[in-house]
Amino acid sequence: MPQGKVTTVPDDGLTTRQRRRQAVLAVHTGHGKGKSTAAFGMALRAWSAGWSIGVFQFVKSEKWRVGEEAAMKALGERVTWHKMGEGWSWIKRAGTERDHAREAAEGWAQIKRDLAAETYRFYVLDEFTYPMKWGWVDVDEVVATLAARPGNQHVVITGRDAAPALIEAADLVTEMTKVKHPMDAGRKGQQGIEW
Amino acid sequence: MPQGKVTTVPDDGLTTRQRRRQAVLAVHTGHGKGKSTAAFGMALRAWSAGWSIGVFQFVKSEKWRVGEEAAMKALGERVTWHKMGEGWSWIKRAGTERDHAREAAEGWAQIKRDLAAETYRFYVLDEFTYPMKWGWVDVDEVVATLAARPGNQHVVITGRDAAPALIEAADLVTEMTKVKHPMDAGRKGQQGIEW
Repeated sequence: MPQGKVTTVPDDGLTTRQRRRQAVLAVHTGHGKGKSTAAFGMALRAWSAGWSIGVFQFVKSEKWRVGEEAAMKALGERVTWHKMGEGWSWIKRAGTERDHAREAAEGWAQIKRDLAAETYRFYVLDEFTYPMKWGWVDVDEVVATLAARPGNQHVVITGRDAAPALIEAADLVTEMTKVKHPMDAGRKGQQGIEW
Repeated sequence: MPQGKVTTVPDDGLTTRQRRRQAVLAVHTGHGKGKSTAAFGMALRAWSAGWSIGVFQFVKSEKWRVGEEAAMKALGERVTWHKMGEGWSWIKRAGTERDHAREAAEGWAQIKRDLAAETYRFYVLDEFTYPMKWGWVDVDEVVATLAARPGNQHVVITGRDAAPALIEAADLVTEMTKVKHPMDAGRKGQQGIEW
C-alpha cells in the first residue's frame, strides 16, 4: 500500500483508517487534455477495487467517448453507461437550446436518484461543468446534494471552468493545462488517440 | 467523428487523412494528479481501436498501479504489462542506487527493441521522466530514438519534470497542476482511488 505523509492531522475524531475511507469528490478542470481521460483511468482503479461504476456522459456528441465506452463495457456488468439525450449536441441552435437544458436537468435528476439510492460506488460525471456553467443545473444544488450524499460514494466531475463553489467543495482538484497540442501543428484528432 | 478546426495547415505535402494518422508522442507532466491515470485512460481508447498496448511501469513500487494493471489485463491479451525490476524501489539506499540505474537502463533497452520491432501500437512509459531526470537513461538518446521510431507507434510518457528536449519533441503536452488534494486535509490515499 503506498504510503504518504500528511502535513496536518484533522481534529475530526476519526481514525486514519476511517479518514482514509472517506468518500472523495474529485474535479478535473482546466483547458488541457486529460480531464476525462484521467477520470476513466480512475474508473479502472475503481473497477479493480470491485466497485460498481456509473458514467454520466454530458459530452458534445454521442460520437465522443466511444473508445472509453467500449473498453469500460468490456469490463462487464459493473459498469453502467448513461448518455444524456442520445444524439444530443452542445451546438446551440435557435429554438433547440431549451431541449438541451431539459436533457441536462434530466441527467442531473437521474444522478440525484442514484446518489440517494447509493446505486454506484464510483461516479464519472463527464463534462458536467458545462451544464453548471450554462445554468442548466443549479450549482448550489449540485454542491449541496454532493455534500449530503449518503454512504461511501466517490464522484469525479470533469470539464473546463469548474464553478468556484464546486472547487471549494471538492477534496481533490487537478487543473489540466495545455502546453502543446497536435492541432497547433495543423493535425486533427485521430481514432485511438482522441476518441 | 469529432471535428476540430486547425489554425495552421502545414506545408508538409500530406493529406489531412495522412496527417491525422501520424503517430503521436504525448507527455503528461506537472506536479498534479492524473498524469498516469490519463495515460491509462488513453490506453482504453487505444484498446478500443484494436491496438496492441505495451505498458512499461517505471513507478516507485511494484504495489502501485495494481488497479490499472488488473483492469487492463482483464481487457485481454492485447495488453502487455512490463514492470521494471520487480520489487524495485525509488527509495535511494546507499549501495543500491547502481542497481536501479541498471534496471532503468534495461527497461529502456527493452523499449528500444520493441519500438524497432514495432511490437506495440500504443506505449505507456509510466513515470519514465524520472530515469531521464536522474541520468539513468540519456535524454538525447530517448528523444532521437522516439523521433526515429518506425511505423505508426503512439507513445505517452508520464511523470514530473519532463526534460525540455522531450517537451520540444512531443506533439501533445499537458501539465497537470495540483489545485487541492485530500492529503492537504490530512487524508491518506485509499484503495480504488489512489491505486
